[in-house]
Amino acid sequence: MTETSYTDVLIIGAGPSGLMAAYWMARCGGMLESSTNAAPSIGVVHRVLHEACEAAEFTFWGPGEDGQLKKQEQHPIHDVDISPFGNCLLNQGRIERFILDAIKDCSDLEVERGVIAESLECDETLENQGDAYPITVTLRTLSEEEANPSCSYGGSGGVRNGLLRNNITPDDWDDLLKTSKERPGNVETVKAKYLIGCDGAHSWTRKQLNIPFDGSTTEHIWGVVDMVPITNFPDIRRVCTVATEHGTLLIIPRERQLVRFYLPLQAVDSTSASLDRVSITLDMIRQKAKQMLSPFDFDFKICDWWTVYQVGRRLASSFTKGRIHLAGDAIHTHSPKAGLGMNMSMQDGFNIGWKVALVAKGIARPSILATYELERKRTAQMLIDLDRRLQPLFVKEQESDAAESTAASNDNETLMDVIQLSMAFANGYVCYYGPSSLVHKEGEGVAANLIPGERFPPAKVRNHADGQAWWTTRLFTSDGRFRIVLLAGDLRREDQRQRVSTFSTHLASAESVLQRYKPEGEKLDSLVEVITIHSAPVRDMDFSDFPEMLRLFDQDRGWAYDKIWSDDECFWDRQCTGKGYEFWGVDRVRGALVILRPDQHIGWVGNIEDVDRMTGYFEQIFQSPQKTLKAESNA
Amino acid sequence: MTETSYTDVLIIGAGPSGLMAAYWMARCGGMLESSTNAAPSIGVVHRVLHEACEAAEFTFWGPGEDGQLKKQEQHPIHDVDISPFGNCLLNQGRIERFILDAIKDCSDLEVERGVIAESLECDETLENQGDAYPITVTLRTLSEEEANPSCSYGGSGGVRNGLLRNNITPDDWDDLLKTSKERPGNVETVKAKYLIGCDGAHSWTRKQLNIPFDGSTTEHIWGVVDMVPITNFPDIRRVCTVATEHGTLLIIPRERQLVRFYLPLQAVDSTSASLDRVSITLDMIRQKAKQMLSPFDFDFKICDWWTVYQVGRRLASSFTKGRIHLAGDAIHTHSPKAGLGMNMSMQDGFNIGWKVALVAKGIARPSILATYELERKRTAQMLIDLDRRLQPLFVKEQESDAAESTAASNDNETLMDVIQLSMAFANGYVCYYGPSSLVHKEGEGVAANLIPGERFPPAKVRNHADGQAWWTTRLFTSDGRFRIVLLAGDLRREDQRQRVSTFSTHLASAESVLQRYKPEGEKLDSLVEVITIHSAPVRDMDFSDFPEMLRLFDQDRGWAYDKIWSDDECFWDRQCTGKGYEFWGVDRVRGALVILRPDQHIGWVGNIEDVDRMTGYFEQIFQSPQKTLKAESNA
Repeated sequence: MTETSYTDVLIIGAGPSGLMAAYWMARCGGMLESSTNAAPSIGVVHRVLHEACEAAEFTFWGPGEDGQLKKQEQHPIHDVDISPFGNCLLNQGRIERFILDAIKDCSDLEVERGVIAESLECDETLENQGDAYPITVTLRTLSEEEANPSCSYGGSGGVRNGLLRNNITPDDWDDLLKTSKERPGNVETVKAKYLIGCDGAHSWTRKQLNIPFDGSTTEHIWGVVDMVPITNFPDIRRVCTVATEHGTLLIIPRERQLVRFYLPLQAVDSTSASLDRVSITLDMIRQKAKQMLSPFDFDFKICDWWTVYQVGRRLASSFTKGRIHLAGDAIHTHSPKAGLGMNMSMQDGFNIGWKVALVAKGIARPSILATYELERKRTAQMLIDLDRRLQPLFVKEQESDAAESTAASNDNETLMDVIQLSMAFANGYVCYYGPSSLVHKEGEGVAANLIPGERFPPAKVRNHADGQAWWTTRLFTSDGRFRIVLLAGDLRREDQRQRVSTFSTHLASAESVLQRYKPEGEKLDSLVEVITIHSAPVRDMDFSDFPEMLRLFDQDRGWAYDKIWSDDECFWDRQCTGKGYEFWGVDRVRGALVILRPDQHIGWVGNIEDVDRMTGYFEQIFQSPQKTLKAESNA
Repeated sequence: MTETSYTDVLIIGAGPSGLMAAYWMARCGGMLESSTNAAPSIGVVHRVLHEACEAAEFTFWGPGEDGQLKKQEQHPIHDVDISPFGNCLLNQGRIERFILDAIKDCSDLEVERGVIAESLECDETLENQGDAYPITVTLRTLSEEEANPSCSYGGSGGVRNGLLRNNITPDDWDDLLKTSKERPGNVETVKAKYLIGCDGAHSWTRKQLNIPFDGSTTEHIWGVVDMVPITNFPDIRRVCTVATEHGTLLIIPRERQLVRFYLPLQAVDSTSASLDRVSITLDMIRQKAKQMLSPFDFDFKICDWWTVYQVGRRLASSFTKGRIHLAGDAIHTHSPKAGLGMNMSMQDGFNIGWKVALVAKGIARPSILATYELERKRTAQMLIDLDRRLQPLFVKEQESDAAESTAASNDNETLMDVIQLSMAFANGYVCYYGPSSLVHKEGEGVAANLIPGERFPPAKVRNHADGQAWWTTRLFTSDGRFRIVLLAGDLRREDQRQRVSTFSTHLASAESVLQRYKPEGEKLDSLVEVITIHSAPVRDMDFSDFPEMLRLFDQDRGWAYDKIWSDDECFWDRQCTGKGYEFWGVDRVRGALVILRPDQHIGWVGNIEDVDRMTGYFEQIFQSPQKTLKAESNA
């Protein structure tokens, strides 16, 4: 007899997509208990910035007129007018550790390692019952031997075997093996309302669902190596493409003096591919790199990690089946050259996580789950197309086709375009989502640069109560709440004060979404938070000048000082320019009204008077409170 | 029989000064083993910025013409042109935790809690023998009961008893009690070469040495409270002074929605003082605050911590006796109003720590230890004077002397001056040290704003190898090394290239300090690191254009990419303006030569040709290598 446990959501796989989805469970699980915590976004940015290498510039190298390698162009990677954050490069294991810590900081949610799923059943007759557990999964705890990674980790001198891709650093192994030590071989049955499969390119979950994974594997073998280079190549600490007669080398600087190389190793015919891959050694990669960087010296003694791979470009034909969703490599694979694999996977988890969490808790309608495939499949397809465009820039397609190949590898205009698209992807700005119940394409003419479906462009604004300057990304904490962002305009003007006063009076009324959907016993802002960003200078207004509904009073904690902000220049912070309204394309006097989804994507834009349409947005998303109560009482 | 152990340096007290001193032991102990690590400064800034409240503005409130409280002035606290870091406010316990973690990250150094010293002997006949252990201390491990803090900690609702000042948060208690649980009552004898007493205002160490602690206690009792305010006072999240007929209230915003109040409670006669102090309750503080903020509403439900204190202004007559040094509250006490107690103590520990560490290891001459009292006593005296100037601005000296009192509390010009001096203290810019073996007052006319004895004014500069922009404070890692900062000027000019080439040739010669003082088997930069900051644009020079001595080659790790920097504008980082040379007052073409002590204070300034005088500086500090070897072989 095996033990049976019940859970709202089961996530299989604890890589970047699984952990991001788990983060939402941790936040939304606790959401109804404590919603006033002001953790910035998911609270890991400072750790990334501290440990990562920030890549500031990229350069193109190629043969000069004399055939010798020569720097051809150099560009900054980071446009401070578009994003506050630069291009940070850091070991995936560290990112996973930061998300794990963020989960631990806000919940008791358990992330188990060394456990595998062995069977999956789904009772389709139960799928339309909100509080049913239609999914049954059998889990088995691996023995210590099965779970123990056989590779040796690098650091100074050691070399990890490249064929096992393991991103966990030694500090985390104990954690990984804990469950195996405590109860090896244990078998457990889990009943779940929802399941998210984040179990990688060879996804067991996807296979159980018989979802086709369409695409093909290209005919090139690539090498990747993280090492501390010994070289006189002058741009070794910059992102570089080095075009040579042997193909194009991609150089990416990393933390701890490491540099990552991507290099094309050889063309293969499809039958012998996997055999060839295993025969490749670290020394073959070293020799190829030496050859490509010649006449510069190149070698290394310290290697942290290396692997050999073939590019498989595949896309799952569907991302969802009933109450089961797939995310990350389980639904899309592509080459790692654009450096977007982990980012794409995290975005998948970031997209599906809050939706499933809110639906499983009975707060949101199950219909919003259909937006997951709608939004992420288009993005995945775009990434695979981008990867296809990158390919010819890195390998000579055929030795015989020398003319075309040389053209491609020297055509920096094209490479530049493709690289800039990669950067936009990495910044998340290519994630513009189509119309759906979560994205209402309205509000034309109100805010030229606030586009429903896209992310809210970050600007630095000043807190009205204390004068501090914060990026808007930090204001919009990822805590599972929707946000009404009231761009209140210039409140020094009587007519504008009147408009905002009318809006606030609506918020306080029984018809407002705050009042209608507030769960019994919870605070007014537990599902939807109102954030005001006005355009008058901070010193022209008092905190107490703002309507009380915009700075909700709490019996224990007084007024909410973190709700009122000003798009005001801050002369001791050069990044806070007071030009947010212009950046967003919003009139400084009349302002605008914006709904942000929990993931910071814009759901709707309108004028301050458009309260009916604003309310209509939420009506399509939230369950009516009666239903919420019923679901809870049945659980 | 008790066990006897030997240690180079024993530190008594693990508050801010003791931990800062311990940090140097951790870094310098490991210094000869691994000196190429690039941890920024002490590596805790990102954690402080993440958790702290940054106070952006301060305001003066006082009675208006109608006698009602009214805002009179508002000023920014932070001048971005002077310091990259704003005024951060955070619980002392968190700061201590960050330093403890930094110590753990770079060493196995043990910080024991729950252990007290019971006897101290010093054999003066051994003090002049470099490798002797003249100090004998008996330590006893407290029982769990003795070590267990009896106060209850706050959080949401609980109130810590104010009379026990304990900054450790609950998470850290286990750590604190570990030793007590393992071996309660254990008695141990420790023999040490050096001792640093950081055991607070009632310092046991100071008493053993019979060092007078001169000064007096003033006649006012103050209350301090950390709480979450419920109020309509509009500037409650800004630093404020509120001048009233009942004295002046000081408001300091804090992390986690907390605000700290300092308020004058009553005048007392000296005989009944301590009795009165104990009789004061939290409710008396609450009532006084309500009275002072009237007609605004004020109350609180959540109190995190409170205490009552009298201001004692005392200064130890000497900071050093033989091989024993005192630091922190053990040598100076003053009111906490300037918010500088912890900063001053940390600076003490930061000053004495590296000196004792280098001397104890036989690297530096014992004569440098005399600079500790020279440098810190003047600073402590200045702080006590500042505190004396603050006092009349906060309390009415006598009810009868109404005229003078009103004048003081309304004279914001004066308060402004004093507050700005406080800020300069907090930023560390008031720590200009007098001439000594560690501060050579030379180089006049070379660098107008690089003054020997003061700190190197921080500017953002760009790494030549990767283009990243870093504050100079982060370049100058606190790892126990001195630094030669070569402000190399404009290397596009042939004459300047020649000057720098000559300098580099000197560095490579047997006469250079790098070669002469290098310990056997260690790297060239193990005691002194050379950092180059030139003034040409990054893209006009190649990394390989710089002399090899400025970017030392390592057999395992290749060239040192973190040694060459450019004072170049970075257009994707608005803080990196390319105006460092102007800020330092250095000619952009000819440059300058600077010696930085391990604590980032400037030791010497000269021209690039002044290698003899540069060498002379180090000759007064370092032991000759022969002596180092002898000391080690005797140990």
